[in-house]
Amino acid sequence: MHVVPKRDKLSDHCGIFGVSAKIEVSPLIHFALRALQHRGQESAGIATFYSDETTHRIHCQKGMGLVHEVFNENTLSGLPGKAGIGHVRYSTTGSSKIENAQPLILFSQYGEIAIAHNGDLVNTSNIRKKLQKTGSAFATTTDTEIILRLLVYELAHDANGDIVKGMLNVMNTIEGSYSLAILFENRVFAVRDPLGIKPLCVGKLPEGKGYAFASESVAFDSLGGEFLRDVRPGEILEINPEDVVSHGCYKDYKNQRESQFERGRTAHCMFEWVYFARPDSVLEGLGVYSVRKRIGQLLALEKPVDADIIVPIPDSGRSHAIGYSEGSGIKYTEGLMKNRYTRRTFIIPSKEIRLKEIKLKLNPIKHEIEGKRVVLVDDSIVRGTTITKIVEMIRDAGAKEVHVRIGSPPIISPCYFGIDMKKKEQLIAIGRTEEEIAKLINADSVGFISIDKLVEGIGLPKDRLCTACIDGNYPIKITDE
Amino acid sequence: MHVVPKRDKLSDHCGIFGVSAKIEVSPLIHFALRALQHRGQESAGIATFYSDETTHRIHCQKGMGLVHEVFNENTLSGLPGKAGIGHVRYSTTGSSKIENAQPLILFSQYGEIAIAHNGDLVNTSNIRKKLQKTGSAFATTTDTEIILRLLVYELAHDANGDIVKGMLNVMNTIEGSYSLAILFENRVFAVRDPLGIKPLCVGKLPEGKGYAFASESVAFDSLGGEFLRDVRPGEILEINPEDVVSHGCYKDYKNQRESQFERGRTAHCMFEWVYFARPDSVLEGLGVYSVRKRIGQLLALEKPVDADIIVPIPDSGRSHAIGYSEGSGIKYTEGLMKNRYTRRTFIIPSKEIRLKEIKLKLNPIKHEIEGKRVVLVDDSIVRGTTITKIVEMIRDAGAKEVHVRIGSPPIISPCYFGIDMKKKEQLIAIGRTEEEIAKLINADSVGFISIDKLVEGIGLPKDRLCTACIDGNYPIKITDE
Amino acid sequence: MHVVPKRDKLSDHCGIFGVSAKIEVSPLIHFALRALQHRGQESAGIATFYSDETTHRIHCQKGMGLVHEVFNENTLSGLPGKAGIGHVRYSTTGSSKIENAQPLILFSQYGEIAIAHNGDLVNTSNIRKKLQKTGSAFATTTDTEIILRLLVYELAHDANGDIVKGMLNVMNTIEGSYSLAILFENRVFAVRDPLGIKPLCVGKLPEGKGYAFASESVAFDSLGGEFLRDVRPGEILEINPEDVVSHGCYKDYKNQRESQFERGRTAHCMFEWVYFARPDSVLEGLGVYSVRKRIGQLLALEKPVDADIIVPIPDSGRSHAIGYSEGSGIKYTEGLMKNRYTRRTFIIPSKEIRLKEIKLKLNPIKHEIEGKRVVLVDDSIVRGTTITKIVEMIRDAGAKEVHVRIGSPPIISPCYFGIDMKKKEQLIAIGRTEEEIAKLINADSVGFISIDKLVEGIGLPKDRLCTACIDGNYPIKITDE
Amino acid sequence: MHVVPKRDKLSDHCGIFGVSAKIEVSPLIHFALRALQHRGQESAGIATFYSDETTHRIHCQKGMGLVHEVFNENTLSGLPGKAGIGHVRYSTTGSSKIENAQPLILFSQYGEIAIAHNGDLVNTSNIRKKLQKTGSAFATTTDTEIILRLLVYELAHDANGDIVKGMLNVMNTIEGSYSLAILFENRVFAVRDPLGIKPLCVGKLPEGKGYAFASESVAFDSLGGEFLRDVRPGEILEINPEDVVSHGCYKDYKNQRESQFERGRTAHCMFEWVYFARPDSVLEGLGVYSVRKRIGQLLALEKPVDADIIVPIPDSGRSHAIGYSEGSGIKYTEGLMKNRYTRRTFIIPSKEIRLKEIKLKLNPIKHEIEGKRVVLVDDSIVRGTTITKIVEMIRDAGAKEVHVRIGSPPIISPCYFGIDMKKKEQLIAIGRTEEEIAKLINADSVGFISIDKLVEGIGLPKDRLCTACIDGNYPIKITDE
Repeated sequence: MHVVPKRDKLSDHCGIFGVSAKIEVSPLIHFALRALQHRGQESAGIATFYSDETTHRIHCQKGMGLVHEVFNENTLSGLPGKAGIGHVRYSTTGSSKIENAQPLILFSQYGEIAIAHNGDLVNTSNIRKKLQKTGSAFATTTDTEIILRLLVYELAHDANGDIVKGMLNVMNTIEGSYSLAILFENRVFAVRDPLGIKPLCVGKLPEGKGYAFASESVAFDSLGGEFLRDVRPGEILEINPEDVVSHGCYKDYKNQRESQFERGRTAHCMFEWVYFARPDSVLEGLGVYSVRKRIGQLLALEKPVDADIIVPIPDSGRSHAIGYSEGSGIKYTEGLMKNRYTRRTFIIPSKEIRLKEIKLKLNPIKHEIEGKRVVLVDDSIVRGTTITKIVEMIRDAGAKEVHVRIGSPPIISPCYFGIDMKKKEQLIAIGRTEEEIAKLINADSVGFISIDKLVEGIGLPKDRLCTACIDGNYPIKITDE
Repeated sequence: MHVVPKRDKLSDHCGIFGVSAKIEVSPLIHFALRALQHRGQESAGIATFYSDETTHRIHCQKGMGLVHEVFNENTLSGLPGKAGIGHVRYSTTGSSKIENAQPLILFSQYGEIAIAHNGDLVNTSNIRKKLQKTGSAFATTTDTEIILRLLVYELAHDANGDIVKGMLNVMNTIEGSYSLAILFENRVFAVRDPLGIKPLCVGKLPEGKGYAFASESVAFDSLGGEFLRDVRPGEILEINPEDVVSHGCYKDYKNQRESQFERGRTAHCMFEWVYFARPDSVLEGLGVYSVRKRIGQLLALEKPVDADIIVPIPDSGRSHAIGYSEGSGIKYTEGLMKNRYTRRTFIIPSKEIRLKEIKLKLNPIKHEIEGKRVVLVDDSIVRGTTITKIVEMIRDAGAKEVHVRIGSPPIISPCYFGIDMKKKEQLIAIGRTEEEIAKLINADSVGFISIDKLVEGIGLPKDRLCTACIDGNYPIKITDE
Repeated sequence: MHVVPKRDKLSDHCGIFGVSAKIEVSPLIHFALRALQHRGQESAGIATFYSDETTHRIHCQKGMGLVHEVFNENTLSGLPGKAGIGHVRYSTTGSSKIENAQPLILFSQYGEIAIAHNGDLVNTSNIRKKLQKTGSAFATTTDTEIILRLLVYELAHDANGDIVKGMLNVMNTIEGSYSLAILFENRVFAVRDPLGIKPLCVGKLPEGKGYAFASESVAFDSLGGEFLRDVRPGEILEINPEDVVSHGCYKDYKNQRESQFERGRTAHCMFEWVYFARPDSVLEGLGVYSVRKRIGQLLALEKPVDADIIVPIPDSGRSHAIGYSEGSGIKYTEGLMKNRYTRRTFIIPSKEIRLKEIKLKLNPIKHEIEGKRVVLVDDSIVRGTTITKIVEMIRDAGAKEVHVRIGSPPIISPCYFGIDMKKKEQLIAIGRTEEEIAKLINADSVGFISIDKLVEGIGLPKDRLCTACIDGNYPIKITDE
Repeated sequence: MHVVPKRDKLSDHCGIFGVSAKIEVSPLIHFALRALQHRGQESAGIATFYSDETTHRIHCQKGMGLVHEVFNENTLSGLPGKAGIGHVRYSTTGSSKIENAQPLILFSQYGEIAIAHNGDLVNTSNIRKKLQKTGSAFATTTDTEIILRLLVYELAHDANGDIVKGMLNVMNTIEGSYSLAILFENRVFAVRDPLGIKPLCVGKLPEGKGYAFASESVAFDSLGGEFLRDVRPGEILEINPEDVVSHGCYKDYKNQRESQFERGRTAHCMFEWVYFARPDSVLEGLGVYSVRKRIGQLLALEKPVDADIIVPIPDSGRSHAIGYSEGSGIKYTEGLMKNRYTRRTFIIPSKEIRLKEIKLKLNPIKHEIEGKRVVLVDDSIVRGTTITKIVEMIRDAGAKEVHVRIGSPPIISPCYFGIDMKKKEQLIAIGRTEEEIAKLINADSVGFISIDKLVEGIGLPKDRLCTACIDGNYPIKITDE
């Protein structure tokens, strides 16, 4: 008998959006997905519901590539309707196929259902087997299909067509991270897992045209709309053109299975503030740019260094570096220039001369660096290969000293909730002191911010954050698979 | 509540192929599908099963377009394995989407299953609803998904993983035409509906390399292999690299539901010999080219005419015309030239001059036609629009008389089993005599072969053929949908 | 110093078209080029002239591929105007580049000139050098650019802007085959070389809308127009919406250089009738299909054989075979089926089984061939590799005997005027008797038509044809390059 | 008679590169062009020279799009040889065609010549006519073809094959801006106009592998090579694998035509430092980033403002803003977030809601801006439309005051040398004071740097810069066309 191999399981780090309005929504979803593009560049998709005397169905367009590559006036005009959802997907090796693009649609007894998902479940193999035993079968290896088939199953059995009841049953079964956009005929739902691992927030369109929800608040900005509030952990929320309706939160998490955390515990992924979200987004009420700058300030106090210039690694380290400059009083300089045209790096190596790919992406400004003691600031280090090349590049440009300061603590544990961390053996920080890492990457010193200071920088209590990748404390017991 | 609209139901007129061998099969499937290309030009797909220590799964590639457009060395090398199936699909308006391309694959409890289907079911809506009630749901609107999900359901319940039993249960439920290629892990099955509506035959590879089955025997020719026999109506047949194993025929068709036909009745679609199959194929032991020529000969006797030359409408009427020439003794002439480069007719109409699209496709050879009494021969007339243009063209070229002779009887009833006939109101032959049709298309005379002579030409007893489209006698009662 | 290498010289076997009308011409050119598609499948191009208060120029679109792949409503709408020319180009290895697509356009002192060319010059290297010495230079290696730059040069010097005088000067310099379409601002010219090697004819549009010329008369058929006459060898002909104006013929060919032929000598390429032109075209007043059938009849008398069936090699040998059948009284059978979907043959060879590409293109109909004495008829043999495979295929299908009859004499000399013959060492007929060739290709007998009978079949005096490839008598002395 | 219309003349703002090495150069040119990508995103091209016993020619590949879209392993492998040039071209409306892509190649009497050009001539119409009168003609409307045909003409006449003499003659004829890369068989030349309007510098490859020249020094960085010096105004410079050879400078500019400037006058385009060049490039010995920062510092002193935060308009205003922050002591904040995924802005406007395109590109970080007095810093203002939208956006984000500071003086005259300035009537700064502009764009104040301070910031004497666009003093009299 055949078991779907673990390696085929897809880590979906994505952006989602949903909208219900008094006007055609496909142009709005298109704009919103472009604002969420940083959350996924592999594929993009939109599903809308349209009904009149002759038609009554969900229309869907999906494709590989950036949002503006997948959609044009023509494809958007094939997506009529005033309710819809959208999705952008992150590229993880090997799973880059159109079959895995979202939204995913099924025709059920109670109508058509489309779903878009950001997150990663940790107990799918049992659910998969259970559903297969009922005679159902899967067309993809995604968690998204598992959630959708489970929902259809619940609708047909216990929930009897009541989608809120069906969704609560699903939430009672699945474990892991999930922010969901669901289109059920003309109804639009947002669902967030009880730990609130992935971000999800609700907003309103301008001029009273309707309501929307999105992975990040920048989606509303792109539409001239307004952020209202975060979707609460465990909440099932429905939007319509006139209102936002909460169907309450999934509360009984603790009672129905082995308690793994205190009541009130949430587990917002701290990496959203550190790296993943756009600086102009606001997560759990906290502006991402401000958080990063504050982390930089705290890092300057915790891991000070005597130096001449602060150089950010663009674009990821810029906010932290400005904070470090403010915290340390050392001058901020854009000493590394990023080539804006490096998407899809395709490298022809010369057989006779060693061309460095990194040089195409980043180039030091020698005049600014020569003879200086440089502090390089970035948000995080995973494997350490890139920073090693950059340190070498800065030295070649004539720096007297090169110090590295990092706006997150060392990563020491894998993430099971959707962030594409490397395997344990690839993580440079495991089992090494800052001095050992400095030696390895040939820096004069390396300093990471501590967990406490990171938490202080973010500004939420520690028990509301998921810090598994930096301290190994998983908010859900990882037993499965 | 939502009902899948009828207009989305897809008429799949296709070609299928399956092979189990001692060697890599994807190059073989590629060749075979190219030989079957005439059965479907919309999309092509191949699924193969491969297993070693690290992998154990079905690989699949599908795409829109001709076989040589979808597959290249690169895509074929991504299809490892010694067992596989393939499919080419016919283009029917509106359903031209990659989502509908085959083979279709599902991950079941008992392993991965891929299926390729030629045919059209007539009782799907009840099955669909029944499966939805169990909590299953559909991702496409194809009959193929219905068959596959039903099979998975049966495997999980009554059949308990036994695929032959599961398939028998499925055959007990579905009605209509179906020739199927099934890949269940490394096992390859051919299934043909109890009436044998669509063709399916089995052959062997050269040099003892394995066995294969195909919609038409030309697929074996392309591989240097050999035709063995037709798959019997209702038969479930399994091939492996060493042998062909019959799991018997579905016999109880009559007992388990309202009897609609005598035991022993089959219903081979007579249109396969008339038009659809390649002239170099052999169906039910009867060479298609020979059948067509014999029909032409019988037509010459049944509907004679005093004329100077026989002109075929290329390429479809050529074999019949040669037969008509032999039967009548009138000279055969290729008086209409076909433009070989007219796939994907894209027509720019001049606003100021009426350009005739037909002229790009067919052009009369005036020297041959001028002053002659011409007999135009074709295989069939459906709506009559094309023949009208051709008659006009032949007259413009200077023909003294234009007679039309057709190698099949008038089409008067729609086909529910997969041939894309037009709506009743579009069929030119309904309610019209040959004289009336002649007048309508501006021919001096029109002659269709009679049903009896057609049956004689084919060479099988009438009760082994489906003649529904020419006499309205459907082999299965059409009640559904 | 650098000399343009001979191997880069392009043999342009092409189709050309020109039109001047009272209506927009780009849709007309598009239709005409599709009718001429058989003369070239590599690239297609259209140039039109448009002038109003704000614009005054030639518009041009060219692309690789078939006409319907290069042009669509969008590209055609970018080609305004009532005068224009078009071109399709034949693919010869190595020269398949967009840079070589035609029409070619230059901006001269006297306005914009576009040119499309079918043919091959034999004295270009001196002209090239002469023009380079004046300070001109070339952007391509095509003969077409040489003709166009020479024309521009003559216009600027001796001809002083008079295009007819300029063209006569050009004709006085260049030697070889050339049929030209020239667009000079809004004037449209047809030019044919003094030997009339390549075909060119003039026709009129329907409803008095204007005049056109084309490589073959089928182009007029596609437009619903009418063939008027062939362009005379050496003639410069101008068309306008109201009339066809002859600027006379270049007469002094004999006087101005070494006499190589009698006055009145022409050299129409006999291969146009044998193979290249469409059967429905009329060249020098002679219908191509009728010529081919007549050749087949003569061949039956000259090289008879005792056999059961005549089988054409489709599509090239079909007309000859029908003639052979008529001449011999032996039954005509379509015993080889051609796969209609084999453009761009891309072959994946199986490593473990020998798949024959020819089988994808042609498949014998065993029922028709088994036990029969077969006469295979084709238009010509060049290298003999394909016919060898076909003979084997026919034998494998069970033929008792296989005889080969060919509608043209053995090819023994290369063509310098644009037909892509192979190198001498590749020509199977050189130095071999019919018996030796039969042995080589494993046929029971081989029979070529004689030169005399071929000429009789065509129906023109021998001194009006170019028969260089079958008798080595070149109409122009080949000294250059 | 037809005159090439002025509107078709192409303003080529481009990047060029040339290399002569001991190794294969196409991978090097590919890397260098990617480093120069910011100078042109419309098309890219590479030409290389290769010679052995059987071949002796220039190979060339060109295409529309970014460098990594045009080139891959396959296309690069078709570009053999150790000498070559490359080009990237800027997109200006209407001229976006493959025909205008560079390098441009001609076959001359003395061999093949390829040329790549950055710049814009101002006296082409007379040269064009003169060349046409000699019997030459043009295939494009580019200045590049004019230069190349003129060079070929000179080679054939006065220069007699001596390319340096030929080029000097060309320089004696053409006026305007031009930096050229020339490949003449295996020889590689760099040419810069006598005023040095466009940048051009020479460098060496690592490990003694050869020499190269480029529009900007970043090209050498990308190869691990080294900047040597700028090409001198008027200099003809040849590189070979072992050396850089200067053929001297074109000195007699003053004597041979009406003197428009003092001897020693150069006219380096000041906009290269302000905006066009990459910050990590070094032009005329001056680092671009340092120049921009210095301009920002001087601007802070010349146009101070009482404010809370300095916000750059990314990415163009970042360096100036850091300088302004240092000069003023006001805190630097990245208060505007740029969407990294906005290439090819394709906008679907909703018919029912006004979506702002600018919001997709830039989004304010409200937390940072709310309640603050903001100084927006950018490099320049042309039409003022974008800055108006940004000011509004910053106000909407809650800024108390919005001040605008610009790192270049008001633009008041068009550029004839290749920068795509707008028409006079579109320039916001013409005839308006800073107060009036502030009012127009709804800012609390606007401050431009003065010409004197800009010149001080760049660090070269005023008479070595072209400041025509800000003071109307053109270094060449503009009379032509």
